[in-house]
Amino acid sequence: MTNVRIYVTYKPSVFDPQGETIKNSIHALGHDEVADVTVGKFFDVQINATGDAVEASVKAIAEELLVNFNMETYTYEVREG
Amino acid sequence: MTNVRIYVTYKPSVFDPQGETIKNSIHALGHDEVADVTVGKFFDVQINATGDAVEASVKAIAEELLVNFNMETYTYEVREG
Repeated sequence: MTNVRIYVTYKPSVFDPQGETIKNSIHALGHDEVADVTVGKFFDVQINATGDAVEASVKAIAEELLVNFNMETYTYEVREG
Repeated sequence: MTNVRIYVTYKPSVFDPQGETIKNSIHALGHDEVADVTVGKFFDVQINATGDAVEASVKAIAEELLVNFNMETYTYEVREG
């Protein structure tokens, strides 16, 4: 069993309105030390595979389901396994 | 400037319907190697501070804005800075 965390973020060219809103709210609370905020989603996925099969599985589910490649991109990391 | 990633997840005791739905969709696509899926949010925050001031800032914005402590918990990591 391999534990993988898949991160999905907006592409850098895509405006992130939720991040902007949160940044403004943080400033309204007085935390002017916060210069920028961007948001993303992550998926912790337990995969019954090891090695190259994990990479193939992650690529498949990212492309078939998790990621909107028009606006988003993804990275992943193996956390244990 | 310190780059911090704050992860917000459901507490382990809280049911994650979105993760369950995604897992079922992944199985419907034929990827039976995927045993479990949980979802979370993350916030990449640029903070004009270093050292202990970063921890204090993260704690404040998590408690005042980002996290619903009834259902959620958070962790964070310093990525650079």
